[in-house]
This record gives sequence, structure tokens and C-alpha cells, in this order.
Amino acid sequence: MTKYVYFFGSGRAEGSSLMRNLLGGKGCELAEMTNLGIPVPPGFTVTTQAWAHYNRTGREWPEELWDQILENLRRLEGVADASFGDPRKPLLVSVRSGARVSMPGMMETILNLGLNDATVDGLAARTGNDRFAWDCYRRFVSMFADVVLDVRREIFDEHLEAAKKRLGVRTDPEVPAAELRKLTETYKDLINERTGRPFPQDVQEQLRLAINAVFDSWFAKKATEYRRIHAIPEDWGTAVTVMSMVFGNLGDTSGTGVGFTRDPRTGESRFYAEFLANAQGEDVVAGIRTPLPIEALRERMPAIYDELLAIADRLERHYKDMQDLEFTVQEGTLYLLQTRAGKRSARAAVRVARDLVHETVIDQHTALLRVRPQEVNEAIRPVFEERDKQAAIAAGRLLATGLAAAPGAAVGQVVFDADKAVEWAKAGQGQVILVRPETSPEDVAGMYAAEGIVTTRGGRTSHAAVVAVGMGKACVVGASDILVDEERRLFQAGGRVIREGDVISVDGGTGEVILDAVTTVEGSLGDEVKELLAWADRYRAADVASDRGLGVRANADTPDDAVRAREFGAEGIGLVRTEHMFFAGDRIPIVREMIMATTDATARRAALTKLLPFQRDDFVGIFRAMDGLPVTIRLLDPPLHEFLPNWREYKEMVEKRSRLEALGMNVEEQKRLEHIIAVVERLREANPMLGHRGCRLGITNPEIYGMQVRAIMEAACTVAEQGVRVMPEIMIPLTGTVGEMKETFAQTKRVADGVIAETGISVKYLVGTMIEVPRAALIANKIAEYADFFSFGTNDLTQLTFGYSRDDVAKFLPKYLDMGLLSHDPFSTLDADGVGELIEIGIDRGRSLRPDLKIGICGEHGGDAQSVEFCHRVKMNYVSCSPFLIPGARLAAAQARIKERQGGGRDRA
Amino acid sequence: MTKYVYFFGSGRAEGSSLMRNLLGGKGCELAEMTNLGIPVPPGFTVTTQAWAHYNRTGREWPEELWDQILENLRRLEGVADASFGDPRKPLLVSVRSGARVSMPGMMETILNLGLNDATVDGLAARTGNDRFAWDCYRRFVSMFADVVLDVRREIFDEHLEAAKKRLGVRTDPEVPAAELRKLTETYKDLINERTGRPFPQDVQEQLRLAINAVFDSWFAKKATEYRRIHAIPEDWGTAVTVMSMVFGNLGDTSGTGVGFTRDPRTGESRFYAEFLANAQGEDVVAGIRTPLPIEALRERMPAIYDELLAIADRLERHYKDMQDLEFTVQEGTLYLLQTRAGKRSARAAVRVARDLVHETVIDQHTALLRVRPQEVNEAIRPVFEERDKQAAIAAGRLLATGLAAAPGAAVGQVVFDADKAVEWAKAGQGQVILVRPETSPEDVAGMYAAEGIVTTRGGRTSHAAVVAVGMGKACVVGASDILVDEERRLFQAGGRVIREGDVISVDGGTGEVILDAVTTVEGSLGDEVKELLAWADRYRAADVASDRGLGVRANADTPDDAVRAREFGAEGIGLVRTEHMFFAGDRIPIVREMIMATTDATARRAALTKLLPFQRDDFVGIFRAMDGLPVTIRLLDPPLHEFLPNWREYKEMVEKRSRLEALGMNVEEQKRLEHIIAVVERLREANPMLGHRGCRLGITNPEIYGMQVRAIMEAACTVAEQGVRVMPEIMIPLTGTVGEMKETFAQTKRVADGVIAETGISVKYLVGTMIEVPRAALIANKIAEYADFFSFGTNDLTQLTFGYSRDDVAKFLPKYLDMGLLSHDPFSTLDADGVGELIEIGIDRGRSLRPDLKIGICGEHGGDAQSVEFCHRVKMNYVSCSPFLIPGARLAAAQARIKERQGGGRDRA
Repeated sequence: MTKYVYFFGSGRAEGSSLMRNLLGGKGCELAEMTNLGIPVPPGFTVTTQAWAHYNRTGREWPEELWDQILENLRRLEGVADASFGDPRKPLLVSVRSGARVSMPGMMETILNLGLNDATVDGLAARTGNDRFAWDCYRRFVSMFADVVLDVRREIFDEHLEAAKKRLGVRTDPEVPAAELRKLTETYKDLINERTGRPFPQDVQEQLRLAINAVFDSWFAKKATEYRRIHAIPEDWGTAVTVMSMVFGNLGDTSGTGVGFTRDPRTGESRFYAEFLANAQGEDVVAGIRTPLPIEALRERMPAIYDELLAIADRLERHYKDMQDLEFTVQEGTLYLLQTRAGKRSARAAVRVARDLVHETVIDQHTALLRVRPQEVNEAIRPVFEERDKQAAIAAGRLLATGLAAAPGAAVGQVVFDADKAVEWAKAGQGQVILVRPETSPEDVAGMYAAEGIVTTRGGRTSHAAVVAVGMGKACVVGASDILVDEERRLFQAGGRVIREGDVISVDGGTGEVILDAVTTVEGSLGDEVKELLAWADRYRAADVASDRGLGVRANADTPDDAVRAREFGAEGIGLVRTEHMFFAGDRIPIVREMIMATTDATARRAALTKLLPFQRDDFVGIFRAMDGLPVTIRLLDPPLHEFLPNWREYKEMVEKRSRLEALGMNVEEQKRLEHIIAVVERLREANPMLGHRGCRLGITNPEIYGMQVRAIMEAACTVAEQGVRVMPEIMIPLTGTVGEMKETFAQTKRVADGVIAETGISVKYLVGTMIEVPRAALIANKIAEYADFFSFGTNDLTQLTFGYSRDDVAKFLPKYLDMGLLSHDPFSTLDADGVGELIEIGIDRGRSLRPDLKIGICGEHGGDAQSVEFCHRVKMNYVSCSPFLIPGARLAAAQARIKERQGGGRDRA
Repeated sequence: MTKYVYFFGSGRAEGSSLMRNLLGGKGCELAEMTNLGIPVPPGFTVTTQAWAHYNRTGREWPEELWDQILENLRRLEGVADASFGDPRKPLLVSVRSGARVSMPGMMETILNLGLNDATVDGLAARTGNDRFAWDCYRRFVSMFADVVLDVRREIFDEHLEAAKKRLGVRTDPEVPAAELRKLTETYKDLINERTGRPFPQDVQEQLRLAINAVFDSWFAKKATEYRRIHAIPEDWGTAVTVMSMVFGNLGDTSGTGVGFTRDPRTGESRFYAEFLANAQGEDVVAGIRTPLPIEALRERMPAIYDELLAIADRLERHYKDMQDLEFTVQEGTLYLLQTRAGKRSARAAVRVARDLVHETVIDQHTALLRVRPQEVNEAIRPVFEERDKQAAIAAGRLLATGLAAAPGAAVGQVVFDADKAVEWAKAGQGQVILVRPETSPEDVAGMYAAEGIVTTRGGRTSHAAVVAVGMGKACVVGASDILVDEERRLFQAGGRVIREGDVISVDGGTGEVILDAVTTVEGSLGDEVKELLAWADRYRAADVASDRGLGVRANADTPDDAVRAREFGAEGIGLVRTEHMFFAGDRIPIVREMIMATTDATARRAALTKLLPFQRDDFVGIFRAMDGLPVTIRLLDPPLHEFLPNWREYKEMVEKRSRLEALGMNVEEQKRLEHIIAVVERLREANPMLGHRGCRLGITNPEIYGMQVRAIMEAACTVAEQGVRVMPEIMIPLTGTVGEMKETFAQTKRVADGVIAETGISVKYLVGTMIEVPRAALIANKIAEYADFFSFGTNDLTQLTFGYSRDDVAKFLPKYLDMGLLSHDPFSTLDADGVGELIEIGIDRGRSLRPDLKIGICGEHGGDAQSVEFCHRVKMNYVSCSPFLIPGARLAAAQARIKERQGGGRDRA
């Protein structure tokens, strides 16, 4: 016979922490605490297996379940010294849901079950409190009706409000017992009316129906959505715990509270809790009364306080983690109602893990697995003071919520274009927030000058998002509720008009855009983070020598980036985007000169000659910063028209020319505009992402790549002569055919070897390619013949494998995520099914020709923990990501390695 | 000892037709003819194996080669009754190249070798013609210098011209012997001067050097390019044939000619040849004299004529194909110099193959394999009269050569926009040619009105190309030498200015754009094509029942298309692009109404309700035309902004608004324009190809697909009630995730079943999907759960697998093809390595879940022969292509089946 019910009470429980899958989180921890001798109200838990039967059979119980419940009910009556349905000594119970993982607020709970027209008097007699008993009964009736009988709570509340009005009172506690009794009668009548049946007086029927309701609540809409978002399987189901009621609202020696064993905001080791005397948990949640600091308990009931602290300490050592507790004091007796691992801020997560190692509670492996990589990144950023932010939202100051693109908290004055951002920031007008429909490479200076960036279009890897993460700027993208009117220099959102210069706050970690300033708290790469990452590096790189550890490199485009990346622990640069060097103020005119000289090869060559020293100097700076470490430099990738005026500017030029023409003014200027307009139109592409870019440009315009390779190698030779250990890796973007690789490989070698011959300085260099076109992955064995290394460009590979333009996904991707058509944004976390398979194919085939092929990843996924684990599993040599994401990547790589060891080695993949 | 030299002469040859690889085409057929007893001047062939040795060793001969040559030279002297280098009876030879396949004009030939200062007198004595002998010597010296000694022929020609001027004569034959002798001396002096060595008098040295020169000519630039274009392997090499000279220029009983055993233009069974008395082949090529019809030979030498006809007949029966002959008559004796399969027009190819079956020369299989599928398609189109076209080109009227996008010959007046095309065509102003930078869906009406289309951008599957092929319009795309100035209504090309209204001719089969009218010849689906295709269908569909034959369906968007498709043999429709129905004149305003109603769901729904009857009526027409055959209908695919004003119109609106604003005029109109401009800007996408389209649109705007499904099913129920056997297959475009498929499948079923329930008429329908996103192929096993069929959309799949936008490839793809980085345009012929592998993965995985999954292809590749063979090999159920390509697809499918049987069955794949 299957055991469907597990009892706990009087210091002994049939369950334990180890039975989480069967008893749910709440049920198993109540059993565990009972076994530890910690005071817990007695009760029993109906297993998830019972739920599974119920679910499988279309709402039928296993045959033996009811008998097992009755048997446990009898045990409970014995322990609780009360009897279920007994008018003299009525046993009241709560019926609670509890899945394997906590789903706070998602499923149902019923309190005070066991009350009926008869037992309510028993409760009154036993507590000596008529009003208390009738209030319990009233609440139970409405809660039961709502949860079990599908009669909405609102209709009961109306009657309560009417009664209060009639009595001239403002709060519930002022309603007297007699009135509560009348209200209860009214509630029951309403139920009879609505359901065609009287409110069940049979307490066993109450229990049976309540258990079914909790079972059913697994499929409530909000629960289903929660599971979808958190990727919780549908078939886990919920357990149901039936537990003897305790009351914190039986007078001054009663009360209720919640607490954390450490400060969840900072991780500081101190008991952090709140207490409310003469109250039930419900009152706290309803916000009727404000809880007091835990000191209130120490003052009122010092013995209870000491007991609680001792229990807290014991639970933390037992569970080896910071705990989140719920407790109730009933007439001087302490009961624990729940314990679970406490939610904590990123900074607290790091500190708690570190401290627990120092306190010898956990080992370093455990500490490393316990902190989420994202938390390490978040721990080093400024954040909003949560209380102040919530207050702002409550006050209606939330303007919009977009996609959380780059974590961080930024406050500043709104500006609508990059130039003004630079101008205001320079003029010391304070911090600015750049708000744009979308950003393009020429906004980079403005983004750099800004504290935060908000765009109304684009997804998590839109230009704005990628650049912001790289710069460590707070960024919200795809905030489609914001309507920007650039001409009038304002935006509308949330029914308000925000003008240039108005102050807003941007939470890049949540996607919220809030009016006015919200208080921020500074983050820092503190000692805790440093210590944790030192452990991470030790485990991650344990055997890099045998080529089995995953390296972490940075995506960095300037010497400054490179220096920062090294500070954050980068072991090289995995991606230098050379085009970013083209956007600096003194260069863009020369770049445009080059592009405009379409038919004049000499002029084009002259412009390139002018650009060469700029590029060379940048490379010199980067190579110096990366002395002894490899630097992968990608040759020009974007289409040329990205360097020309953008849409807005194009439109402005067309408008200006038309105006001048209409007014017959300034023919000179008209001609100049006409020329630029024509160039823009000629270079315009239908789908630039799929157009004339990457190595396609390098092949049709070999002089461009020639200049870049020359600049790289001249820089390398220069610094090598000065004693810098330089390791350049030249990377060809967008290769899709063997022909392209063969051609650009030969072209690159020719120029590079030429420079070495000219300078007489021998520098070892590699030539490799991005794998970012699906076809390249499929023919990787052929491409590997001409490539010393591969770097998976997973941004483009994701775009092409899905057929999604990252700049356009905002129109449907959020809806897809909402509807559950996709479990996650594939631009944030690598899509293992599709993109991942292409990567595996690419690696297998590439290494089939060249077993020692060096392979990395340089898309945004290099900074995402789940994606880093994937990269480890498929045996890449390194990941490369924005400098600000390096701490998280280091931790993620260590976690992958530790999990793998626990699971039996990387080779199993 | 390896045999490197094969002799032929006196009715016996060591080689034969079967030794094509060893002796080259020319060598083996000379041997074959010799064995057949056909008069051929004797000679010998040095094998391609000798070439291979020469190539492998860096220009060294096999040790035994020279001895073998000398030995065969002796045999030749015996047969020819002349002696190599003998001043009395000099043996003269030609040295000719000959690879496995004919590479006309690509490699070198040397005539009259064996002449020197001594033998020239012997030749004069023997022929009794001093002038003849010296002319031969002069020509030989210059030819040898050019081919062997690398001294350009031009410098000799200058001297010849000078001599003619001095003598006051106009043609070469007027130059007397003495002058020719002097010229020869001058030539020899020039050679001595240029090369530092005297002209070789040793005839053996002449021969050795000539053979080397022919060997080397395999690597001449033009030959290398020819091989690249025709995919001829580099390592085949050439054989060298050394053959006794015969002379057609020894008086009135001599002459030379070329001929075809049937008319190469029409295939008509009559000897089609030209003859020139007292002349050598060289004279014909040089265009000095115009050849006469073959009747000239009949009149002058009736016996020779009869002999030639008998030989022609014999050769055709022997080779079982129409032959292309070269012959020479020397003093009343006929010699055949070459025979090979004759090049022929598409129409001739079909007719010859058909006729040879009727004449029981070949069987039907052979006939089907001998006609290229493209030829069947070409055979039914109008074509230019080749002679007139070449004359036009020779006269400098070629304006540009672009990509041959859709075969056909069109002549008409140039127009620069679709509206004008419609207007002029309607007004009966004659045929028009639409010339545009590129086309978009709203140009469709204009394209339909035009005879031909020329674009300056885009590749073979650009919008213009795809639509033109579908409409059967001649189309040239990517003609980048044409510079369109829309404002001034003109284009510049080839140094000329062509204005709107000027007449041009467009050859969609070759890519040529020619000034003024070129004469056209009407094509038709004649009896020959019908008969051939009937055979094709028989073999192709031999066992369709056992699901092993490849079906052929049509891509058709209107009832008219459907009717035409059925005429051409379509077995169903594989793709109805429903969006094309949106572009018709009376509908586009309603579509725009729908799109503009972005925030007003009611207005949007109202517009959709107005569109429904239009769609329904179209479907009714298509279903009727396809009674008894399946019709696959793709739901809306392109992004919505495609229905809004395009770039040019947008710019015009911005200009107009600015002008009005500057002048302070018409505020009403300004506002109207502002609104449309805003909508266009809001819907604009960075990469529309990767944007909000296909099922993404269907999911975010379910009302659109809902309307379409309703229209389809209402139409289906309507016609079903009238007795039409209707088989709708509803196809979801752009699926990339299981979630999308599941959602749209359910959504479609819901609406469709709703219509069936409403009407009470039961219609069987399928719901399937396009596989056009790489990810869809990778997860095909999951998608198949919710799809009754797959159709590979290889246009998009190619775009995404390569990362090429078909509208933007013109900037680099032609260069890639030129450089040999790609062997073919992947939008024309399916890329088996990359795209093909994804298709195979998709089929394997799809059928792993659903073994009977119906699978087709509906990209442009469905009409390409090589791609059709691929589709057959991977076991698709059908291909679908433009109606005008159906004949070719039927033939290609039959060929695939026949080849497979010959190779051992489809299952071997």
C-alpha cells in the first residue's frame, strides 16, 4: 500500500529535508524542524504522489488516501489535545500548498478550517474571546468560499464595508462580535444563493474540498505562468500540508513575525527580523499594521527572543545557509511555521557565501555554487535603494517598464540626442540619461557621456543594449510605452509629458523607468567579491594546462577597456571591434571621405592612409595593456553605410534641401546635401544585417582590410621591439564559404608577412575566423583548413538561425516570452536546441580536421551563466564578454567545472 | 612502356570514340571516323596522359614520348607520301588541341607546320603555286611566333598592311608572291630581334615547341576562366593531335565548309551547311569572304555533295545525335576534319531528341536525358533572332549586361515606374520595359503590364527576378552599369543617355540589354515539347503510387496563374502567396486602412472584414481551376510595411511636406502627410527580412490569419458544395520554434473547424508549415508534431544559411562568382553543402516523428534542374515552381528518376 500521508508533531516526523520532491518545500522542512526538536505546530502532509494520481485520473483520489488522512487526523487530535469537529475542544487546521520549489503567493492556503456553527462556540469558550472566535469563522467562510467554492471574496468584503459604515467605525478590529456573527450568517446565505448549496458544516467535507482546491490551484493561471517563467515542470505538482492552527492574535503574549538569519540587503551577520504583537501573519500582509523591528520582541518577551535567536542560529548551521523564518508566539509559546533559504541581494549573496566559508559552515565549492554569476556582476554596480524605489512606484511615478538590458541604477536629466548628452555632461550640467527610439554606432560618444540609456525599440542585444553592457551603463531597451517626440524635445509616458532636462531614474536590472530621482546605493568590487572570484579562478583553471579549463577573455575596443578588463580578471581579449575605432570624433570625417570616394580609388587609398596611424595607435595601447595575453582583433564588420548619416539625419537633410529649394535659397548648400543624400541612397541596403559587410567588404575592397592588417602588425612589431609580449590573433568576420576564408587568409598573410619583412621584427600571429553564419558551422571542416582559430559570433548566429533581427524583435519577442512560445530570450541565453546544435556541429567538424583548433565565443552570450556552462560542456577554450560581465563569467566557468566534476567529468558531454 | 601516341590513317586507327578521356574529343572522333572508313587526313594524337606528366613534372616530357612521336611521324610520312622536312615532298601538319569536352576557341592550333626556307620551295613546286606556298609560310611564321614564341601577331599585321598600302591593294589575296616572300623575311627578322633567336628551321624543333605550346595553352587565362564557368576540372588537361594538312585553297576544285546534320535553330531534319570554294577555314573565321549556302557545293561538285550527305547521315546514325561537321575539299577529294555533337537552340534540342526517337535512332530515356530542362522552358518563350542580336551588339548597341534572371526576349519603350508602365500599356502606347533600381511588391501591376523588366540592383532571386519568372516576363537584374536618374526620367549606360519612351530590347536568357528593337522569334508549347514531356511524365511518375516519384506543382497566386499552371502540367499548387492578393488595385487602400488602424482594433477588424470577400473569391477561382488537385496556401508572409509607401514615395512625401511648410501652404495636406510619414517610420524595420513577418505577424495579430483561414475555408466549402474536389493545405510561414507551430496550428484549426461547423460542409484540409528558418530544420522532429506537411522555402533558407539578403547581394555576389569563391549563385541552384544539409536534416528529423510527412519545396529552386535532382534524391514528394518553369521541372524530375535507375535506385541516397 502506498503511503500518501506523512505525519509530524511532538518532536518526531515521518518526513525530512531529503523528501522535498514528495512533501514539497514547506512540508519537508516542517518535518525536518520537528525532528530537530524545534517547536512546530503538529500536522501532516499529503504527498505530491497523491496529487499526481489526482491529476492523472481526472480529479480522483487514490483509494487509500482518505483512510490515511483520517488516521493522521486522529494522531493530530491526540497530539493537539483537540478534536476535529468537536464543539467543545475543536481542532482547527490550516491547509497549505507546497511544491518542490517555493512559488510565493501562487497557490492557495486556507486557515481556520474546522470551524462551523457548532465549533465556533467551542473556540470562543476555549479562548474566552467571543469576538476572536467569530472573526475567525467569518474569515474562514469567506476564504473557503473564495478558494474552494469559487465565490469571489469581493462580495463578502462589500458587506463588511457596509457594516463598518453603518457602525461608524474605520477598522476591522472595531467591528464587535455580534456584528461579526451577523456578517457570518450573511456570508453563508450568499454562498447558498450563489452555489445552490449551504456552506458545508461537515468538517471532514470541508477538509476534503480544501485539499482538492489546493490540488487544483497548481493549475491556476498565475501559477501556470509563474512556472513557465521560472521553467518549473508542469508535472511536479504540489503537496498539501494540514497543520494545527496557532494564533498570534490572542493578546499581548501573542504575536507573529518574519526574519532572516542575516541581513538580506548586505549579508551582514545579524538577525534581521520584524515582529508584530497580538497579530496574525495575515494582518502583516494586508498592511493594516506596521511591523516593528525585532527589538520589540526582545523588550516584550526576552526569553522568547533568546529562544528564537538560538533556533535561527541552529537552523542556519543545519541548513548551511541563511534562512528566512516565519514564527508565531501564542500566549507565550513560540512556534516556527516555516523555514527556507532566504532571498538576498546580490551583494548579500556574495558576502553570505564568503562568510559561511570563513565560519567553516560550507566549503569553497558550495560557496561558489551558491552565488549566481549575475549576482557577482550586480554586486559591483550601483543599485537603487529598494524601499525608496518602491515608494516612488507606489506614488505613481513609474513611467514605463522595458527590457532590462544592462544592470545598474542611473539618475539624470533626459536628453534626446548623443550630441546634447556629450555637451551637457561636459558642461558639468550633471548626469544625463539618453532617451532614444534606438541607438546607432554614432551615438556611442553620447552613450558614454550618459549615466543611463533608454530606448523605445530593440531587444536585449540591440545596439543600445550591447554597447551599454560593454560600457557598464544602466540600460533599458524596448520601452515601447515611451513615445518620443524628438522635434518637440519631449516624451510621453504613463500619461505624463517629460521634457528635455527633466530628471528620471533608470533601473537597468529591472527595466523600470521612474520619474524624478530615486536614491542609489554605491556598489564596488569589494573584498568579498575578490575573494570569491579568487576561489573561482582556482577551480576553473585547475587544469587549463591540460586544456580542460574554460578561459575568460574580454570584448574590448580601446586601451581603456583593455585596462579595465584586465582589472576584472580578463585573460586576454576575445574581440576587438575595429570599427568602433572609426567612430571617434577625429576619425569619422576621414572614414566618410573614404566611403564617399567610391569611384576614385586614389582618394579612397589616401583616406585609408590617414586612418592607419589612428588604428595603429589604438592597437599599440591595447597590446601594451595586454602584455603577455592574446588579443583577438576582428577586421571591419559593419556595412559602410553605418558610418554615414542615419535615418533621422537623412530625413533632416531631405527636409532642409526641400525647404531651401522651395525658398530658392543657398544653391551651394542644396548641392552639397544632394550629394550626401545620393551617397546614402546608393549605399542603403534592404537588409544591412545580411548585406555587404564583414569579409564580403574585405574581399570586394581589399584595401580596407589591407590597411587594418598593416596597422595591427605595425603596432605589434612596434611594441614587440619595446619588450611587450604581443600575441595578435587576426579575425575574419562573417565567413560563410571556403572561398572567402581561403582568399582573406591569403590576403592577410601577405600583408602581415610583408610588415614583418619590412620591420625585421618577428611577431607570431594567428589568422582565424568568426563562425556566425549557419553555413560556416556546417562546413567548418573545410574552413578550418585556412583558420588557426574559431570564435563563435553568437549574436549573428542567433539572428540567422532564428531569422530574427535583433533590432526588430521588440515587436514580437516580448509577446512570445509572455505567451510561453519561447522559454527565454535567445539573445540573452544561448538557444541550446538550435544555435547550440550548430555550434556543436561547428566544433566537431572544425576539430575533425584540426584537433587542436582554438575555439571561443565572443557574442553577448559569453557573459551569460547558462551559456558559459554550455561553452564549457562543448569544450570551447574560452568565452569572451564585456569587461563588466567578466566576474560573472569567471564564476560561471568555475561552476560549470565544479558541476561537471560532481557529475563525472567534462568528457561525458 | 606507356603508349602516349595513337595513330590514325588509311582506314585504321588505334583510338576510338571510347577513348575520349585519353585522346580528347577531337582526337578520338578523328580516330573513330578513320575506323568508320570516312576520309580523314592521317595523323596521330598525343594523349592527355602525356599532358598530365608534363603538368606534374613542371614541363617535362615522358622519356619515351619523343621516340613515339618520331615513330608515328614515320608512319604518317608513309601514309601521306610526303616527308617531314623534306624539301622535295614536304609533309605539312597541323597541331591541334583537344580536351575531353569541347572548349571552342579557348586553346591553340598551329597550321602548316613543317615549312621552312627549304620546304617552302618544295610546296611551291608540288602545288605549282608559288604564291600559295609563300602565303602558307608567311602565315605559319606569324602563327608560330604568336602561339609558340610569344611574339604578338599584331606587329606582323602592321607590316602586311603597310605592304598592301604601298602596293595599292585592298585584300590579302592581291598581294603577290614576291611581296609575300619579302614579308616572310621581315617576319623572321622581327622574331630574331624580339626573341634573340632565329626562327627555327628545324621542323622537329618546330613540332616539339608547338606541342609544348598546345600543352601550355590549357592554362591560358581565357581557358582557365572557361573551365571555371563550365565547371571543368583543372586536371583533365588536353591531348594534342598532329594531322597531315589538307588545303581547300588550291583552286576551284578545292574548298572548305562547316555543317550541321539538322537545322540547329529549329531542329528540322535537313542538312544545314555552308561552303566556300577555294578557301581555308581560316578565311571563313576571319570574315574575309562570306560563305555560301551548301547548294553552292551541290552545283559545283555534285559527287562531293552526295558523298558529304551520305557521310553526314552515317555519322548521325553512328553517334545517335545531330552532328557538327568540318570538311575540306582538296582538289576534288573530300576530307572530314572534325565531327562533334552540334550545339543547337532550345527548340531544336527538343525537336531533334523527339525526332531521333521517331526515327528509332535513340530510345525515350536517351531523348529525355539529352534535352536540358532549361531548354524545354526556353523552347516555349519568344527569343531574339540571334543573327540580328549579334549584329546589334557588333554595331555597339549593347547597353549593359546584367544577370539573366528570367528567360525571354522583350522589346519595348523604357518606363521608370510601375504606374507609368500600367498607364502606357493601357493607353495602347505599345509594349513597355520597366527599368528600376529594384522592384517591390507594389510594382507588381507595372511588372505585369510590362514586356520585360530591368533592375540595376538585386540578384537572381531578387523580387524582380522571382516575380518576373513567375509571370513569364523577360527580366535582367543587377545591371549595375545602368545608372537610373528617376527624377530626370532617363538612364545612362554604355556612354549613352536613354530617355523614357526610348526603345530597348531585353534578353532575359543572357542578361543583355540592347538599344532599339531586336527582331524576335515566337516560341510555343509545340507538339515536340508536348510529346517529350508526356514521356517525361510517364517515367517520372512511374511509381508515384509507391511514393517514389517526384511530383511537380506550381507557385500560383491567382486563378489565371492556376489555369496556366494546369496547362503546363502542374499537379497541384505548392504555393499561393496570399499577400499578392493584397496588392491588387482595389485592395491596397483597404490593406493600408487596416495597417494604419494600429491602436484601433475595431477599425482594424472592420478593414479585415472588407478584405475577406476579396480573398475568398480568389480562393474560389483557384480551387475551381485546381479541381481534384491539392492547393497549398501560405498565410500572410511579408512585413506589413511592405504595403505602405516605399522609400521613394516616403522621400517624396517628406519633400512635399517640407516645401509646403517652407511656403506656409496647405496645412491640411501637411498634416495628412505627417500622419503617413509617422506610420511609415513606426513600422520601418532595420532588417525587414528578419523582422516582424510570417507567423510572427500571425501570432501578434491573430485577426489577420483568422480572416485568411476563414476566407480559405469559406471558399473551400462553397466550391465543395458545387461538386469541386477541393484539397486545401494551409501553410504557416517562417516557423522557427515549436511554440509558434503549436499556437498557429491550434489557431488555424479553431477557425477552420468553426467554418466547417457553420456551413455544415465537411472539407478535408491540412495544416503545415514552411521550413525556411535554419532552426526549423534543426528542430523539425518537434515541429512535425503539429504539421501535416513541410514545404522548404529555399529562398529564405538560402538567405539565412548564407546570411545573404537577396536584395543586396548584387554588391558582392557577382564578384564572388567572378573570383570563383562560389561555383554558382546559390539563389539559382540549391547549395547542396550548406542549405542542402539543413534540408536533409529537416527531412530526416521530420520523418523520424512522422514517416509519412508530405514534403515539398516552394523556393525558386523548384524550377532549377540540378536542384530538382537534389529534391528527388532526398525523397521529397514534390517540387513547386513558377508555371513557366513547370515543363523544365517535369523533365528534370524524369531525368533524376532515369539517372537514379541507371545508378541503382533512389534508395542509395
